[in-house]
Amino acid sequence: MTDSEPSVFDATCSARHALEIISGKWAILIMSALGESPMRNGELMRRVGGISQKMLTQTLRELESNGLVVRDDRGTVPPNVEYRLSGLGQSLTSTLSVLDRWAEENFPALDAARERYLQQNPKR
Amino acid sequence: MTDSEPSVFDATCSARHALEIISGKWAILIMSALGESPMRNGELMRRVGGISQKMLTQTLRELESNGLVVRDDRGTVPPNVEYRLSGLGQSLTSTLSVLDRWAEENFPALDAARERYLQQNPKR
Repeated sequence: MTDSEPSVFDATCSARHALEIISGKWAILIMSALGESPMRNGELMRRVGGISQKMLTQTLRELESNGLVVRDDRGTVPPNVEYRLSGLGQSLTSTLSVLDRWAEENFPALDAARERYLQQNPKR
Repeated sequence: MTDSEPSVFDATCSARHALEIISGKWAILIMSALGESPMRNGELMRRVGGISQKMLTQTLRELESNGLVVRDDRGTVPPNVEYRLSGLGQSLTSTLSVLDRWAEENFPALDAARERYLQQNPKR
């Protein structure tokens, strides 16, 4: 590896920016949801528990502007707008699924560690 | 799947909390760095470009309190404190590496998409 190779560890590298776009719980959850099937706004609001409309709109726009999500506006009245993953977005879904499943399988270990930590570090 | 199974999509589920801990660029970058080797604070500051001391301390403490990172304090004078991944943390490294490499390989596609988007949506 030379210094000029792209690296997520380099704050000035576009690779870091790309990592910032695809990390973060809302981006991960929205892309995971759209990995199941294309969805409209209301469906995403129901699928991604706890997200606000503002955060959903903002994250969808960021994913769309970076080519990860396609906003499919049929241009009809009443409006019929659907979101789906692009090919680029689809190339991430298997990895994001591994993260999701890891969290669903390992949260008891994190919970137990947190309890131990709080007992051992009551003042922190 | 029943409704009672843990799901990252459920905002009240501990699995969501676990996903929140392991997503986020700083947690991902710190765990990726420690996946290379155990490091002291100064080494982590140099490896994870752009992180502030405050954010490094805060993220390390969160990872430690959730059992992902071990803080190894030799108790010597001068202090010699090293951070390393726990077994739980190590179980994530291959997946985080895939995310890092994805970002390093695909950032040109994200950059190009963003440029197209800005041209097509000049007012947004």
